[in-house]
Amino acid sequence: MAIVSIDKLTTQLSRLPGVGRKTAQRFAYHLLSVPEEQALELADAITDARKNVHRCPVCSTFTDQELCEICTDPKRTEAVICVVCDPKDVMAMEKTREFNGRYHVLNGSLSPMNGIGPGDLRINELLQRCDSGDVKEVILATNPDVEGEATAAYIAKLLKSKNITATRIAHGVPIGGNLEYTDEVTLAKALEGRRIL
Amino acid sequence: MAIVSIDKLTTQLSRLPGVGRKTAQRFAYHLLSVPEEQALELADAITDARKNVHRCPVCSTFTDQELCEICTDPKRTEAVICVVCDPKDVMAMEKTREFNGRYHVLNGSLSPMNGIGPGDLRINELLQRCDSGDVKEVILATNPDVEGEATAAYIAKLLKSKNITATRIAHGVPIGGNLEYTDEVTLAKALEGRRIL
Repeated sequence: MAIVSIDKLTTQLSRLPGVGRKTAQRFAYHLLSVPEEQALELADAITDARKNVHRCPVCSTFTDQELCEICTDPKRTEAVICVVCDPKDVMAMEKTREFNGRYHVLNGSLSPMNGIGPGDLRINELLQRCDSGDVKEVILATNPDVEGEATAAYIAKLLKSKNITATRIAHGVPIGGNLEYTDEVTLAKALEGRRIL
Repeated sequence: MAIVSIDKLTTQLSRLPGVGRKTAQRFAYHLLSVPEEQALELADAITDARKNVHRCPVCSTFTDQELCEICTDPKRTEAVICVVCDPKDVMAMEKTREFNGRYHVLNGSLSPMNGIGPGDLRINELLQRCDSGDVKEVILATNPDVEGEATAAYIAKLLKSKNITATRIAHGVPIGGNLEYTDEVTLAKALEGRRIL
């Protein structure tokens, strides 16, 4: 009962993040059960997205223009650059509607264990952008994990020599969270970062 | 920051079963981040599967041949037909390696609430197959839910008039399960279906 086309489709679907063999099989059978147009719409959407979307040469977020909408928006300040690991972090930050500067996607974080050093990230490109003279502050919004912290510390050190303020997003108790269920490292960071009301 | 191609891809991915907007977005960003060939492999796998795979005209399971491997296997008996709702149920049954007959996929189950009546299922095709004279038993392996039970009961009644034995798969406590966590309806069915050891 092995049908090559279904096996191939299942294998490809199982490469999606968080999708195991069983879920991939469920997706495959779904795509075979829906009207053909609907399945082909997904195939076309993948092909189109890969054809139309590329990285912005300045900040490296996804765009279908020559430069991304954020890099070309004249209403956004050049003085602040928010550094993130991944294009999807740009989307997360934009959802806050609180940031009016530019972005810089590193495309990863330092991870000596996985052989990812400073040369593998877009750190030189960041330093070049900082050399323009317009940049006053770089917000380091890498992930709050070991690699992200190391990356932030590494970049902060480089920026110090250029006299640019490097800031790090705050760590603390998430809104809507619960002290009882907050891990002790986060709680310690929340205590350390306390502010006068 | 709305990029049409990414939005379209996200929408298409969110039509997969059990995939919400957020997971779809994660899939979309993944498909944009991996090497282009890998993303296009998925698109091609969908297109190929839809081109090569169709329903077997006899049992209605998926196949890339004229008739499916099960319907054409001379080693399988014609005397028993296992009736299921969906092609993926055939796969589930085949995994048991306990069944050596043929299948018949109904393509759904009776559901007056959703306007699905006997005419919308492949019941006539089943009766025609039973008229060949080779069929001695029909195993009703529809889902153990209200619709599946109703469908099984409906078909059993039709088969009675043809003097063909209709059987229903057993309901009971699943292997590896736990009495304490078994719902009372299942437990009642397990009690009702008890057998002498």
